[in-house]
Amino acid sequence: MNQLQHYVCGEWVSGKGSEATMHNAITGEPIAQTSTKGIDFKAMLDYGRRIGSPALRKMTFHERARMLKALALHLTSKKDAFYKISALTGATKADSWVDIEGGIGNLFAYASKGRRELPNDTFLVDGKPEVLSKGGTFIGHHIAVPLQGVAVHINAFNFPCWGMLEKIAVNLLAGVSCIVKPATATSFLTEAMAKEIIASGLLPKGAFQVLCGSIGDMLSHLDCQDVVTFTGSATTGQKLKAHPVLIQNAVRFNMEADSLNCCILGEDITPDMPEFELFIKEVTREMTTKAGQKCTAIRRTIVPENRVVEVANALKARLSKVVIGNPATEGVRMGSLASLSQKADVRAKTLELMRVCEPLYGQLDGFNVVGADAEKGAFAPIMLLYCQNPFAVDAPHSVEAFGPVNTILPYKNTDEAIELAKMGKGSLVGSLFTANNKVAKEIVLGAACMHGRMLVLNRHSAGESTGHGSPMPQLVHGGPGRAGGGEEMGGIRGVMHYLQRTAIQGSPTTLSAITGNYLLGADEIVKPVHPFKKQFDDLEIGETLTTHKRTITEADIVNFANLSWDHFYAHTDDTSFEGSVFERRVAHGYFIISAAAGLFVDAAKGPVLANYGLDELRFTKPVYVGDTIYVKLSVKEKIAKDLREGEVPQGVVKWQVQVFNQLHELVALATILTLVERKG
Amino acid sequence: MNQLQHYVCGEWVSGKGSEATMHNAITGEPIAQTSTKGIDFKAMLDYGRRIGSPALRKMTFHERARMLKALALHLTSKKDAFYKISALTGATKADSWVDIEGGIGNLFAYASKGRRELPNDTFLVDGKPEVLSKGGTFIGHHIAVPLQGVAVHINAFNFPCWGMLEKIAVNLLAGVSCIVKPATATSFLTEAMAKEIIASGLLPKGAFQVLCGSIGDMLSHLDCQDVVTFTGSATTGQKLKAHPVLIQNAVRFNMEADSLNCCILGEDITPDMPEFELFIKEVTREMTTKAGQKCTAIRRTIVPENRVVEVANALKARLSKVVIGNPATEGVRMGSLASLSQKADVRAKTLELMRVCEPLYGQLDGFNVVGADAEKGAFAPIMLLYCQNPFAVDAPHSVEAFGPVNTILPYKNTDEAIELAKMGKGSLVGSLFTANNKVAKEIVLGAACMHGRMLVLNRHSAGESTGHGSPMPQLVHGGPGRAGGGEEMGGIRGVMHYLQRTAIQGSPTTLSAITGNYLLGADEIVKPVHPFKKQFDDLEIGETLTTHKRTITEADIVNFANLSWDHFYAHTDDTSFEGSVFERRVAHGYFIISAAAGLFVDAAKGPVLANYGLDELRFTKPVYVGDTIYVKLSVKEKIAKDLREGEVPQGVVKWQVQVFNQLHELVALATILTLVERKG
Repeated sequence: MNQLQHYVCGEWVSGKGSEATMHNAITGEPIAQTSTKGIDFKAMLDYGRRIGSPALRKMTFHERARMLKALALHLTSKKDAFYKISALTGATKADSWVDIEGGIGNLFAYASKGRRELPNDTFLVDGKPEVLSKGGTFIGHHIAVPLQGVAVHINAFNFPCWGMLEKIAVNLLAGVSCIVKPATATSFLTEAMAKEIIASGLLPKGAFQVLCGSIGDMLSHLDCQDVVTFTGSATTGQKLKAHPVLIQNAVRFNMEADSLNCCILGEDITPDMPEFELFIKEVTREMTTKAGQKCTAIRRTIVPENRVVEVANALKARLSKVVIGNPATEGVRMGSLASLSQKADVRAKTLELMRVCEPLYGQLDGFNVVGADAEKGAFAPIMLLYCQNPFAVDAPHSVEAFGPVNTILPYKNTDEAIELAKMGKGSLVGSLFTANNKVAKEIVLGAACMHGRMLVLNRHSAGESTGHGSPMPQLVHGGPGRAGGGEEMGGIRGVMHYLQRTAIQGSPTTLSAITGNYLLGADEIVKPVHPFKKQFDDLEIGETLTTHKRTITEADIVNFANLSWDHFYAHTDDTSFEGSVFERRVAHGYFIISAAAGLFVDAAKGPVLANYGLDELRFTKPVYVGDTIYVKLSVKEKIAKDLREGEVPQGVVKWQVQVFNQLHELVALATILTLVERKG
Repeated sequence: MNQLQHYVCGEWVSGKGSEATMHNAITGEPIAQTSTKGIDFKAMLDYGRRIGSPALRKMTFHERARMLKALALHLTSKKDAFYKISALTGATKADSWVDIEGGIGNLFAYASKGRRELPNDTFLVDGKPEVLSKGGTFIGHHIAVPLQGVAVHINAFNFPCWGMLEKIAVNLLAGVSCIVKPATATSFLTEAMAKEIIASGLLPKGAFQVLCGSIGDMLSHLDCQDVVTFTGSATTGQKLKAHPVLIQNAVRFNMEADSLNCCILGEDITPDMPEFELFIKEVTREMTTKAGQKCTAIRRTIVPENRVVEVANALKARLSKVVIGNPATEGVRMGSLASLSQKADVRAKTLELMRVCEPLYGQLDGFNVVGADAEKGAFAPIMLLYCQNPFAVDAPHSVEAFGPVNTILPYKNTDEAIELAKMGKGSLVGSLFTANNKVAKEIVLGAACMHGRMLVLNRHSAGESTGHGSPMPQLVHGGPGRAGGGEEMGGIRGVMHYLQRTAIQGSPTTLSAITGNYLLGADEIVKPVHPFKKQFDDLEIGETLTTHKRTITEADIVNFANLSWDHFYAHTDDTSFEGSVFERRVAHGYFIISAAAGLFVDAAKGPVLANYGLDELRFTKPVYVGDTIYVKLSVKEKIAKDLREGEVPQGVVKWQVQVFNQLHELVALATILTLVERKG
């Protein structure tokens, strides 16, 4: 039989003997076995710490992002092979798409976010500087640097590809190496993708290791620079979280557990409204996709009590069209669970629910299976239950059948709907169908404290919606309480889980040198050449041009009003200043910033390609006729951009612009964004 | 004897009998006793959840911030009483200042940050919207709402006031009620301040409770909406963190433990440089302030090996001037430890260190104590140790004597200095004295992963520095590993610890309704009256003015170049466009935004008081001669401001400005900031 391999310290190896056997979920046939016996788990951590993480730390965020993109493209080119193996897990083509291409999509998303939202540097500057002293000689700031350990990802069986990729996209972008430990039951698919990751040659040595089986004593060797992520059942997660070494060494631990997610039908929705139909479709989809094996699936359907009958009938009609069986067979819409042990577990939990809920649709035994042997495959029936008094019983809010099982809970008013949503004691996601945005606001703000994600669907958003069950790389995935209390992804928020945030204090000049950002109050570097005449590479952070001066005249204000058509009374009307913040006609703010550009711009064609915007412009003092202004223009931040075919090599240069008056008082402040040519 | 009281469910009560007795740290005399026997700990949580937290949640961040300011003023007016009680803990006047006024300073700081950086609303919008679909009908965003539980603060004995205030400033601003449990040894001072907090009547009922003694079984009743913070020893902290109920219910736990913080003298510093003297002063101060009982105190002094003798001599000279004794006695510079048990502990740990380190200054027995009985008071000697080979032994990096004890560790080069700093296995703070900003960058980036805060001092910053040992409300306090792995304060970052961050998804219109911010793509609200004619209160989020149009002429570009003096070739020179991003002379970006104002401004004096700035201006497409532009001006966000004496009642209105061309393509985008009059 096929013996799975692990990627350990730079080599593909097998463990001794067989600790576990994996089966085809449709036919029940054994397909692979695995063991991690004989593997030195501590050596894997050391290898990641000594080899992989330092190599990643040498790369900038942009370099790591480009690596993710290349990896995504490579895996996309191999996807057909993954689909074939995925079928063995009982997945339909659509289920596999979520796992395989959804997972690769995470790499693309982080590749893009990394280049757009992170600096082209090895660490990041977090938030804004903080003035800590009156004279401004002592200030504070925050940086975030990669942890110098290893990320250990302990994943669930339901998404053997996505579960790996959504996590490694983030730790690799952060600059931290990883060890992936998929759930054994479906690890043969993870192994196949991991082999392509290594074969791509795109990751530095040691950046990625994989263990298709037990993790041994690895957790006993972790320290505070390591991160453990866990996705799976709450029971296992809690055991890991309380591991004495994790507690003692303050090892970061992020948990994402199955939860009893709800879907609410708003009180405003009647069966003739499009939202009713959309709701029925979404609940059906969430019950049957991946045969209900999603930690985000809808388990509790919260319905106005006067709509229960209509909802139940509509769901029954729709569910009855879902053919269960071998996904290879024409017409099959739902495959099997991932294993026979899951099948037994779902059955037991469904029976537990049925003690307090009545079945509306489905039968535990004798349901129809097409194209496969119902006994040998891990097939489960679609079960729709009804709980008449959801405030009086606990099971629907705490017992999760991790399969195509869902319970309808009736409510009387919006407060009850919120209360029921919160009774899940912490969920990954809750959704709401309403056409009334006031209802949306009330329910979302009321139930948010118990949810990691809430989505509101109506006729306007449903067409393009990614759905109740889909975590998105841009958004936080994870929830409080039962859902594990963690957060994954969420864009750059996720990257912070692998970085140490450190407050830094010192003089503005010192903190400018550390951060690579010019901070107000830092020493100015004066050079003989105008900075607009210099290429990106030759500009130094803190390089400052102090311009000639300009006296603002009445003619300037009049001309600017004429040219801009901005005749606001403060610039044009001498008779209306009583009670206003102005003493007399004031120069337009936009004139001041335009005149500032007139003072600092070097007119000739040069390395500055374009001024594409401006951030945080503040007018700090009025400028009146007779005031004389001058400007300090300082190189604030430089971000090298990727080279692109057919484009001049370039980088973003952000300039600190300070406009002063004749008393050297600041009258305006801004950050100006330009593109500047750089050496190829 | 004085029996301490607890503030429980809205009443001051005492426990039955006496579980602990507190002593005057200078004289050893008993001064108070306490017990929490008979207290219903679960009822306290329920009270906070049912009464205190809901009351706080009804208030906006600004209202809570004003409450903090009022509380800070009230406590300041009572400070003399606190100083008197603080003296009983062995503190000098300077020590008490840090605890009492430093603590009150945190209330002021969060009061100010709350009003400047948070919305005047009951929840906050986190980050930027995320486009999740091509057509833009389905987008994502994040909000953060207050947890609906209670913050339980378990504090250390060394800062009975600051320890309470730095934490409650944050949970109260977040909208979460709290229960403060000071360390018993110095809880008589916390009790005194807590009585003033309650007496002020400034906090809503149930927002604040206090337990001056054992916390009983409170932790067994926590759930995922509660937060536990712990400050103190690593051992106790780890025990609490692993509490089965905390693990099972995913209760947020934030720990801040003592750590072996370092101070590094840079290789570039010679004894004749001012940084040398500043370093000696800072190390002395950190050893002796609070008799070394600070979790941030310098425990390890990392010195170039060729400077050890000079450093040791200078420190000895300076330390010898620190008179130990009763702070009430003239000339005393260092008081006692907080209790006799601390005294025994410090002695034991010092002996442990002395197994591998030699004493350079101080003697464990027979040291001089002025104005008090050395045996009866909790006095400890100042001990300066030296570890010759700090890479070979572990004790200096792991054994902490929580008193005036410090070890000098020699290093050969910058890499070794970084390595030694990291050998503390996670510290709250590390500091560095250098006059070379390259050294600063290398050491800070090299050691940051093991530090929550790092400060760099030199002749420019030291004068205004708040010092190595002072956590600042604006900056993160906490560190990895040994320091507990937590984060406190850090400005608004700290507030997030008491909020649930929830991703939200839906149509732009729905998410605008939920967040109260106008998001691009949301429905526009069209009204007959120009929005500049409306008061703050009458403006609706999403209210949008679509302006008349303006054709951009060559004369406009020429006139703008003449008026602004900005003669950049892209606007003025037909012969230089080869290889540039422009096809022909382009209108100045600042002209486009000025002309936009000319289109949307209502000239007459009205409720708009001033335009004080602009955020995120982006020029998305060039505008050429003959193009015709128009503007959409939408109410994006409204933030009511506090009423101030002598100022027109006002609020901030942020406007989304979109400038389009004749093809309805976006050419510029910005957020404009105005002050608008509101009803008083």
